[in-house]
Amino acid sequence: MKGKTVFEIKVGDSAFVEKTISECDVYLFAGITGDNNSAHVNAVEAEKGIFKQRVAHGMLSAGLISAVLGTQLPGPGCTYLGQELKFVKPVFFGDTVRATATVTEVYEEKNICKLSTFCTNQRGETVIEGTAAVMPAKA
Amino acid sequence: MKGKTVFEIKVGDSAFVEKTISECDVYLFAGITGDNNSAHVNAVEAEKGIFKQRVAHGMLSAGLISAVLGTQLPGPGCTYLGQELKFVKPVFFGDTVRATATVTEVYEEKNICKLSTFCTNQRGETVIEGTAAVMPAKA
Amino acid sequence: MKGKTVFEIKVGDSAFVEKTISECDVYLFAGITGDNNSAHVNAVEAEKGIFKQRVAHGMLSAGLISAVLGTQLPGPGCTYLGQELKFVKPVFFGDTVRATATVTEVYEEKNICKLSTFCTNQRGETVIEGTAAVMPAKA
Amino acid sequence: MKGKTVFEIKVGDSAFVEKTISECDVYLFAGITGDNNSAHVNAVEAEKGIFKQRVAHGMLSAGLISAVLGTQLPGPGCTYLGQELKFVKPVFFGDTVRATATVTEVYEEKNICKLSTFCTNQRGETVIEGTAAVMPAKA
Repeated sequence: MKGKTVFEIKVGDSAFVEKTISECDVYLFAGITGDNNSAHVNAVEAEKGIFKQRVAHGMLSAGLISAVLGTQLPGPGCTYLGQELKFVKPVFFGDTVRATATVTEVYEEKNICKLSTFCTNQRGETVIEGTAAVMPAKA
Repeated sequence: MKGKTVFEIKVGDSAFVEKTISECDVYLFAGITGDNNSAHVNAVEAEKGIFKQRVAHGMLSAGLISAVLGTQLPGPGCTYLGQELKFVKPVFFGDTVRATATVTEVYEEKNICKLSTFCTNQRGETVIEGTAAVMPAKA
Repeated sequence: MKGKTVFEIKVGDSAFVEKTISECDVYLFAGITGDNNSAHVNAVEAEKGIFKQRVAHGMLSAGLISAVLGTQLPGPGCTYLGQELKFVKPVFFGDTVRATATVTEVYEEKNICKLSTFCTNQRGETVIEGTAAVMPAKA
Repeated sequence: MKGKTVFEIKVGDSAFVEKTISECDVYLFAGITGDNNSAHVNAVEAEKGIFKQRVAHGMLSAGLISAVLGTQLPGPGCTYLGQELKFVKPVFFGDTVRATATVTEVYEEKNICKLSTFCTNQRGETVIEGTAAVMPAKA
């Protein structure tokens, strides 16, 4: 359950997590955050909007990026420093989202890694793009 | 229940949401995202880490930013385009987090607003800083 | 985030919240309250009953009335004194319920408001009728 | 798992359910209903209010009344017709609430029962009073 240290991480290392986003995930996320935007929890209003149906919160899919960093690369014990996100396409209920993180920079002396992070759906379309900065657990 | 249109938003407009982050919030967020990093859900391991206790996911507090945008400013029906986040300080279980969004730029012709977004705790310390881009609902 | 005081509320003021009720909502409500009546969580038994399918708990839709009072009118900080409810029609999974509260009486000296409260579905049918009494937050 | 029919119910019959209300129950209830009134989920604001701490939603304890009706008396398969509620005292996080229902009227030909319903806490104080009307499952 121990994550990698900065000395065990190389540019090009990559990992992912993948999950089918359910209505229940979206409703729980709305509950935790208080984000009850009609786009997420009101089917009647969402039908009139640009996506014609309810969509998952962008931050929920972003949470999968947090997951790949926190459980795989660098893994347990790392500290999340920052994240840039572009929400490129909507995630619909039932979509399967894969969050991939690939190491782009390693600063051993500062104990910091930068990663390219993106989420794709089951059709291979990118739904989120961005970059992350993390501090791996110390040895 | 209708959010503001781009024509109803001015530079300097500001809104916030505030919530005490519970253990339950963190555990549900871990469940939804799969981010079971020991820093969040393992009290024994977290005690050995740099914060000496379990901390909330940064992305959970970022979810409160999503909430202030999606429910207040611009409000229901808006589309989230992007978010930059710096996780400046940890959020502990029981901390009361206020997410504030303040409009910094309005592009009427593109239907886009940019906002300064930050989260503070009950001691007034900034825990997240960043900026957001959103597309308000059309009239 | 501050609710209205009794002096800011007039007879005829009205507000609503609206949400699509998901299976997840009903199952969580069953879990929280322990109301595992087969009408709510047993599809096989519910099919033999008068509604021919599982229905949401009446008290769940009543919770939306609590929400409109607690978040809109009077809003944050108010105290709920009482509620009368008639469960007029069933709410099915996937129905979009709108809870509307309209002020009918204001007692400034006692700091009490009475409201007509009802819930309708996406077909405009009334599913709950009733009245509420609340004490708005003090100035 | 079959509830009682109207012919098996007599005036004076009584049943109860009891549960310790956790912070998690309250937070989930806030999520399901959207009732994020600061009185329930904001410890900083709640401290300034009349109860000096966060309190459970009245409708959550009312949900225990729904539970005793739906699982015990009359039990599975019954239909909830109406409920009157007076929220007499607050329920704090960690309070143990007992919801008791006692049959006061039985109308065999209409298949309806009326019950006195109240909730008490672990100190024996009444927190909710009221009456319910239900239609037991048919034979």
